[in-house]
Amino acid sequence: MKNLKCEIIAVGNELLFGETINTNATFLSKQMSVLGIEITKHTVVADDEEMLLSAIKSASENNDIILFSGGLGPTDDDLTKEVVTKFLEDDLVVDDYSLKAILDYFEINKITMSKNNEKQALRPSKGHCLENINGTAPGIYVEKNGVHYFLLPGPPNELKPLFYNKVIPILNEVNDMKMYSKTISIMGIGESLIAQRLGELLSNDSNPKVAPYASPGIVKFKITAYGEDDENLQNMVENKSRELYPVLKDYIFTEENKSIEEVIIDKLKSLEKTLSIAESCTGGMISSALVDIPSASEVFLKANITYSNASKINDIGVDANIISEFGAVSEQCAKAMAEGVKNSCGSDYGLSVTGIAGPDGGSDEKPVGTVFIAVANEKNTIVKKYNFSGSRNRIRFFATRYALVNLLKNLIN
Amino acid sequence: MKNLKCEIIAVGNELLFGETINTNATFLSKQMSVLGIEITKHTVVADDEEMLLSAIKSASENNDIILFSGGLGPTDDDLTKEVVTKFLEDDLVVDDYSLKAILDYFEINKITMSKNNEKQALRPSKGHCLENINGTAPGIYVEKNGVHYFLLPGPPNELKPLFYNKVIPILNEVNDMKMYSKTISIMGIGESLIAQRLGELLSNDSNPKVAPYASPGIVKFKITAYGEDDENLQNMVENKSRELYPVLKDYIFTEENKSIEEVIIDKLKSLEKTLSIAESCTGGMISSALVDIPSASEVFLKANITYSNASKINDIGVDANIISEFGAVSEQCAKAMAEGVKNSCGSDYGLSVTGIAGPDGGSDEKPVGTVFIAVANEKNTIVKKYNFSGSRNRIRFFATRYALVNLLKNLIN
Repeated sequence: MKNLKCEIIAVGNELLFGETINTNATFLSKQMSVLGIEITKHTVVADDEEMLLSAIKSASENNDIILFSGGLGPTDDDLTKEVVTKFLEDDLVVDDYSLKAILDYFEINKITMSKNNEKQALRPSKGHCLENINGTAPGIYVEKNGVHYFLLPGPPNELKPLFYNKVIPILNEVNDMKMYSKTISIMGIGESLIAQRLGELLSNDSNPKVAPYASPGIVKFKITAYGEDDENLQNMVENKSRELYPVLKDYIFTEENKSIEEVIIDKLKSLEKTLSIAESCTGGMISSALVDIPSASEVFLKANITYSNASKINDIGVDANIISEFGAVSEQCAKAMAEGVKNSCGSDYGLSVTGIAGPDGGSDEKPVGTVFIAVANEKNTIVKKYNFSGSRNRIRFFATRYALVNLLKNLIN
Repeated sequence: MKNLKCEIIAVGNELLFGETINTNATFLSKQMSVLGIEITKHTVVADDEEMLLSAIKSASENNDIILFSGGLGPTDDDLTKEVVTKFLEDDLVVDDYSLKAILDYFEINKITMSKNNEKQALRPSKGHCLENINGTAPGIYVEKNGVHYFLLPGPPNELKPLFYNKVIPILNEVNDMKMYSKTISIMGIGESLIAQRLGELLSNDSNPKVAPYASPGIVKFKITAYGEDDENLQNMVENKSRELYPVLKDYIFTEENKSIEEVIIDKLKSLEKTLSIAESCTGGMISSALVDIPSASEVFLKANITYSNASKINDIGVDANIISEFGAVSEQCAKAMAEGVKNSCGSDYGLSVTGIAGPDGGSDEKPVGTVFIAVANEKNTIVKKYNFSGSRNRIRFFATRYALVNLLKNLIN
């Protein structure tokens, strides 16, 4: 058995001008991957007949399914339907049901319909329309020589419901491949080192396949099995996980495909502990990342963005002598900040970051990128020093991520 | 004279799985468009030699420039460099400078280097490395038969500085199309309304062209002239600006293509005024956006992320009765927060946000998306109420942006 193959072709100048991000390709890829259909390629072409014809020709030679987004609008430069029909050597005919739906849409929304909109009711004679309740451009489905063509409107709020309601049922008829996957997230070890230790276990060709996704401080491994029998797929994934555990086990922080922020909030809730934060160079990035989790308010009491020395001293009680003796970017100040913010509100955990994000402010002793991260709990305070490199924003992002990693390590131990 | 043509090829399974959005293509498209270079196509292919070779072959037949992103990492499935070198019938050689940079990177960051990382110092013998100060994968530039190949790392925080610092200077040598542009940024009016008022002045086909880029609360108009004579181009842009001024003038906040955060920090510095912030639902997003501007420390004293009621009361002196009578999400509480944080540190301006970001916590009277924004200065406090819609993250982003817009309006008046 083999996976069906699919290419996603987006049509539109606005994508090539960089004015719109191709989020449709991301959405469709994720959905198709869930269905066990392999995405072989994304292509974006201009509203141009020749370019589009060439893309369709190439895609139809290598795929079972082609998903198109965009180019179904009423204006003359919308030509996806026209070009696909030409490629299939078919003719456009008026779809009566769609024409009525378009007329109704304009009447209900009290908009004057332009002559152009009638063009949206056309379909290839051998295809059929997929009703779009969120706009005037119906989708189109047509099959020829074993290749399935789906033409979807460009606006994501039209494309998504059309995909769920109209495309998936057709795909389920066409596709008999099933898929099961699981994600193991680890922290505290770099991608290349863990990849080296995993060696051949990290194979992209096998079934189940294991794919790593790295970001600062965190690597996720997605294990995916393809096949026909649901029961068996889960076993295959679990067996593969067991092969990985000896290498990964000391670093795993979730097997539920959650973000580190979610895991931290969950952990605080299950421990019935509260958190407060003092941020200097990260300036609110850590707090903002945690507040993005809806239930953060149950455990996250407050943060102080103590960007000035006065704020460190007045708001969270850092001893002025510590700053004058060791500097605001120091192990001692990080410790005083974590303990100070914790004591100022009576939280169980205090997290602090102080560092030099640059581009100025560095010295030989403390170059740009020097960051101290402290975690205070009921028993003690642990401070770590990092030397990050790169732009101001990169240093702040790394500091944020490693602060979360250190906090979670502290919560787990 | 004609525009150079360029295809953007992204390499990576994570894009085809829908795990990562191809924002690099959007960034590169926008940048190339600024340089007067035409983007003909975006392509995303898997980490697969055959697919990548076929994409390169096709791209090299129709373009002057090919920009690659991704596939330069240390693992075996990173193969962009290997496949491009093979396509060009060249050989990989060790680049001594890059090897030293990689060794230094690991030493400075005290990370154990794996054997795999040495692979990142290889380059085609006829190409050269583009130094990447934000990661271990250098970029590559190589030219053959009039086609210019740029291989860039996938992480946006590595790709962007490499593009600005290394790719643009080379493109400027290659491209003899000259361009001059200017960006006028406005706030306080929506894109469709201003576009309607501008009418035919907003033409994308003319030279100079005027392109709008809208984001919450802000619209930027980029006026770009293309041609051969530098002197003349600037005049063309200035003449076009003068045509736009009658419509835009009441809303302009900068003509220097600066972010609103930069304009706020600049304005505070020139006024010799200081700022403090109290954030609830935005949870640090506003502070973090301002701290991203390097010189923020001169004028931004501190922020309190008063996520709990206790923190609002204890840290910035909000009267407990205000919260019990009107609620934490109320005009009165927003006012007390802005004044309270301002008074707590003696800053000249106080900015506050309190709202319901959802998905829970809404009521009939105060649905999810209800946000109050207050700006306090030496004379008075102005509070505005908003009703944003969408996801938690979208509501928080809108609240952040409108807080900055309201603050800047207050600073300008």
